[in-house]
Amino acid sequence: MANQYVDLETLKFLLYKVHSVQDVLEQERYAEYDKDSIEMLLNSVKDFSDKELFPYFREMDEQPAHFKDGEIVVHPQVNKYMKAAGEMGFISGSFSYEDGGMQLPQMVLNASAFIQEAANNYLPGYVGLTVGSAELITHFGNKELNKTYVPKMLEGTWGGTMCLTEPQAGSSLSDIVTSATPDGDSYKINGQKIFISGGDYQGAENIVHLVLARIKGAPAGTKGISLFVVPKKRPTADGGLTPNDVTTVADFQKMGQRGYCTTHLFFGDKEDCTGWLVGEPNQGLKYMFLMMNGARIGVGRGAAAIATAAYHASLNYANERPQGRKLTSTGKKDANQEQTLIINHPDVRRMLLLQKAISEGSLSLIFLTAKYHDLSLASATAEEREKYRLLLEIMTPVVKTYPSEMGKTSVDNGVQVLGGYGFCSDYVLQQYLRDIRIFALYEGTTGIQSQDLLGRKVTMNNGEALKLLSVEISNSIQASMAHDSLAPYAKKLAAKLELTQDVLKSLMGFAMKGDYQRFLADATPFMEFFSNILMGWLWLDLAREAQNALVTGNKENSAEFYESKIHTMQFYFKYELPKTTGLAEILMDNKTALTIGTDKEVFV
Amino acid sequence: MANQYVDLETLKFLLYKVHSVQDVLEQERYAEYDKDSIEMLLNSVKDFSDKELFPYFREMDEQPAHFKDGEIVVHPQVNKYMKAAGEMGFISGSFSYEDGGMQLPQMVLNASAFIQEAANNYLPGYVGLTVGSAELITHFGNKELNKTYVPKMLEGTWGGTMCLTEPQAGSSLSDIVTSATPDGDSYKINGQKIFISGGDYQGAENIVHLVLARIKGAPAGTKGISLFVVPKKRPTADGGLTPNDVTTVADFQKMGQRGYCTTHLFFGDKEDCTGWLVGEPNQGLKYMFLMMNGARIGVGRGAAAIATAAYHASLNYANERPQGRKLTSTGKKDANQEQTLIINHPDVRRMLLLQKAISEGSLSLIFLTAKYHDLSLASATAEEREKYRLLLEIMTPVVKTYPSEMGKTSVDNGVQVLGGYGFCSDYVLQQYLRDIRIFALYEGTTGIQSQDLLGRKVTMNNGEALKLLSVEISNSIQASMAHDSLAPYAKKLAAKLELTQDVLKSLMGFAMKGDYQRFLADATPFMEFFSNILMGWLWLDLAREAQNALVTGNKENSAEFYESKIHTMQFYFKYELPKTTGLAEILMDNKTALTIGTDKEVFV
Repeated sequence: MANQYVDLETLKFLLYKVHSVQDVLEQERYAEYDKDSIEMLLNSVKDFSDKELFPYFREMDEQPAHFKDGEIVVHPQVNKYMKAAGEMGFISGSFSYEDGGMQLPQMVLNASAFIQEAANNYLPGYVGLTVGSAELITHFGNKELNKTYVPKMLEGTWGGTMCLTEPQAGSSLSDIVTSATPDGDSYKINGQKIFISGGDYQGAENIVHLVLARIKGAPAGTKGISLFVVPKKRPTADGGLTPNDVTTVADFQKMGQRGYCTTHLFFGDKEDCTGWLVGEPNQGLKYMFLMMNGARIGVGRGAAAIATAAYHASLNYANERPQGRKLTSTGKKDANQEQTLIINHPDVRRMLLLQKAISEGSLSLIFLTAKYHDLSLASATAEEREKYRLLLEIMTPVVKTYPSEMGKTSVDNGVQVLGGYGFCSDYVLQQYLRDIRIFALYEGTTGIQSQDLLGRKVTMNNGEALKLLSVEISNSIQASMAHDSLAPYAKKLAAKLELTQDVLKSLMGFAMKGDYQRFLADATPFMEFFSNILMGWLWLDLAREAQNALVTGNKENSAEFYESKIHTMQFYFKYELPKTTGLAEILMDNKTALTIGTDKEVFV
Repeated sequence: MANQYVDLETLKFLLYKVHSVQDVLEQERYAEYDKDSIEMLLNSVKDFSDKELFPYFREMDEQPAHFKDGEIVVHPQVNKYMKAAGEMGFISGSFSYEDGGMQLPQMVLNASAFIQEAANNYLPGYVGLTVGSAELITHFGNKELNKTYVPKMLEGTWGGTMCLTEPQAGSSLSDIVTSATPDGDSYKINGQKIFISGGDYQGAENIVHLVLARIKGAPAGTKGISLFVVPKKRPTADGGLTPNDVTTVADFQKMGQRGYCTTHLFFGDKEDCTGWLVGEPNQGLKYMFLMMNGARIGVGRGAAAIATAAYHASLNYANERPQGRKLTSTGKKDANQEQTLIINHPDVRRMLLLQKAISEGSLSLIFLTAKYHDLSLASATAEEREKYRLLLEIMTPVVKTYPSEMGKTSVDNGVQVLGGYGFCSDYVLQQYLRDIRIFALYEGTTGIQSQDLLGRKVTMNNGEALKLLSVEISNSIQASMAHDSLAPYAKKLAAKLELTQDVLKSLMGFAMKGDYQRFLADATPFMEFFSNILMGWLWLDLAREAQNALVTGNKENSAEFYESKIHTMQFYFKYELPKTTGLAEILMDNKTALTIGTDKEVFV
């Protein structure tokens, strides 16, 4: 049977070979795992996804989550999935043994989540936020909070959310006004939060909100924001639960991800909402951002998963749909010939190869960043941990953005492969296209990620992260030079590394002069440029691994499999990488600042 | 009040000044019109659109057209609009006086339709197909057909459709199997058609289908296709109407354009469906394609209209939404400052300017091509008419494709301007994003247009069309050289013209060798490259007109208006035109043919 939404063979090749999960498994923290146990886990996730996720994907879109009589009606599968996720360890996977977790590496957890999200990008969202909020409690909360909330969350009985956004503030978290008034050992919470994913759903026994709020008298801006646990129902002395004045006032209906609810919550409408401080006062944003790398990898992964599922849907269609004829050498077609399958038309192949290059490349990017994440936590020496922390920091905005932005392009091409059917609700492609649009907005928009990349990560520690990354890429180039067939591509990539230096030199001039606005004005095109080159590196690595296998006669995968990876690398180098030439021209054309100013007349 | 969906000042500047509609009005055919009458007409169209189109746009999406009990339920405004369109001459506009029409130039008709489509891209579709099918009858049908059908269609009482696509054939029209069996003076029609826009709607007195079918015994392929008038109800001897065995069996629900019905029709299910041949047998496809230039301009125009409306929606939001603060010179933000409007953030300005460049540029492209259309029909000499016919032919695939493809990018940026709200159903941006997706599929996909451009239009008449176009562009470059401030841009464009020659030389090598598949394999990237450069030309023209007005002290528009056009041209030359450098690199990297073949292993 054709792959319906994911290709496990490619996933495993990336995980085991290209990004050698073994390097991570060798760290003491992960001593209980080996390749066999990982393999078993991934196969069971795929089985589970086939049965419990993929079959509900279409109907969850057709019967969207919605607000009714003060609560959110969701598909019955949500509760079933949360319970199963608790049982199968999808929620506790990342937690330490001492916290009741499975202490799995991020690489493996990302592989597991990727498979699930490719099958159904709504259900795993409920788990994702429960994990994120429980992690905040285990990392920064006191024992009492841990004891009260975490076990119920890890077993999937209680859901969790992250409550950051407010209507007047949007991405500008320094303008949060939700208040926390000291009240004995706890606080009275008052305010409202919007865009709360998984914020409420019928059948959940309780929902634990991790809320950013400002303690009365706290400093202005981000320095005065604290983090609170605010449950929908608070525990009573007798071990029961009582309503905690958290009201679901509405939901947001959306163009996509309609199976995943987005809510508008009021806290303390009746002055009876209790919150418990997590960690120290005024450290809320810091805590939130310490968990942000993982969250942003998760966003990129979700987009990569949708792009992957869309690729398989398009590929299956193209393999079955006869239409048109091949051109003869004169450019004419012979109407008496049989129709050909559309996969034989070069333009269709080009679109499919683009989908393949983006979706497999994105997964490779996810694994690489997850590996940095693991090694930043679990490497043996502090020096190594710091090295991988810096690499994780610089890759995070890229891993969030590339799959989200290029994933849109990928799915858009997938729609085009189907022609008019791609636009029709009877086919799944339009659903993927609607779903993927949110990922460039989640957890910091592309503009915000791009400013993070150029304004913070590239320059952090005197450019140390960028230097470390350049060493990684240069090592890859060196290794590829050893293969005659790869050397031309390695040289191309080396030239692009030099081009990156030129571009940065041109942009850094503005930062040196103290003109930060000019420095960051083109951060988004820089992100496009930079991530395109990084993907060239990842494809070169992928092709080298395949080439090594061919040369050494490794039979774990077929020769066709290896050759197809090399072919896709060549496609990437021919059709994607050269775009950076034009982007560099854009980034170095700095005579005028056309996007800076407050002049409204520019838009007349 | 801010422009809600269209900026008439820019539209008129483009129509009157940049593309001098006067050149067309001076032709004998249009002698009855002058600038004042055009001005009056456009203002009344805008008034009408404000009242009868824009207010229904959101609800037509929320209550989509749908199939019920054998017919299509549409919004009540559909019938009201068809009647009004008949009365206001929206249907008869393009027809000659002798056919009961208004004999208006295409430039003006496109301006009128553009305003309407920006207000509501569903309702004008019903008119558009009625015009197209009535035009086929007036051009190629006999007197009897003209007398029976055209007057009712022009008054909006009877709708019209174009029935090309069949399930097994898709874009491959040579595989049409709908049959026509001679039966006295007429034919018995039997077959099915899919994707029929406006194919049926409650309340229409009759619907006149223009159907491609194959007369029994006709040659295979496109040479055996004839065109028939097949009404839903056929006229009876006593002047009444009787059902003609045309059955609506289903509709297609779609991700966008939900207010515009798409139907699946059966003809002759009970062997009682009569069709009347239009013109000669086996000439059907030729007739259809003689009307195709206008239809394809119409598709590009619809996309440009949506991109324009989305631009105004984003601009209005950005002008009203406070969020975040401006960067200080150190890169820090001062939380005690007031929030700034998001329009003051460079990244938001970049996205809005991109929307402006694409949407205004697309409208300019529409007017230019419509002008070629008008002059190809109405120029005084045969030589002139032939010149403009060739220019129309080469511009047609571009005018269909650029607004459809880049319009998607434009609206996507518009969604991003709104952040999370852009994804929410409460805001209109997501509706525009869903709607615009169909335009790259309508009337020949982007892949088909690209093959038409490179495989037919660039080479037609020994490259004569391309030569004529090059002369037009060179003239524009020369004229711009006269302005010191424009000369650097003129030089950049001249260099891009040379680059185009290099690219074509590289590609034509394959055609010369008889390798048409290789020649056309990269037709789509070539389209992107070629249309990007043509848009540079159009922006240079636009800026020159503005510069002329500034220099001569023309006060028809404000200085700010003219300066904003020059600013947008600079934006286009900085942020869009350089992309062609990378695209040229892609197009000239011809050592390997990565998208050609029938090897399925490539996708392993």
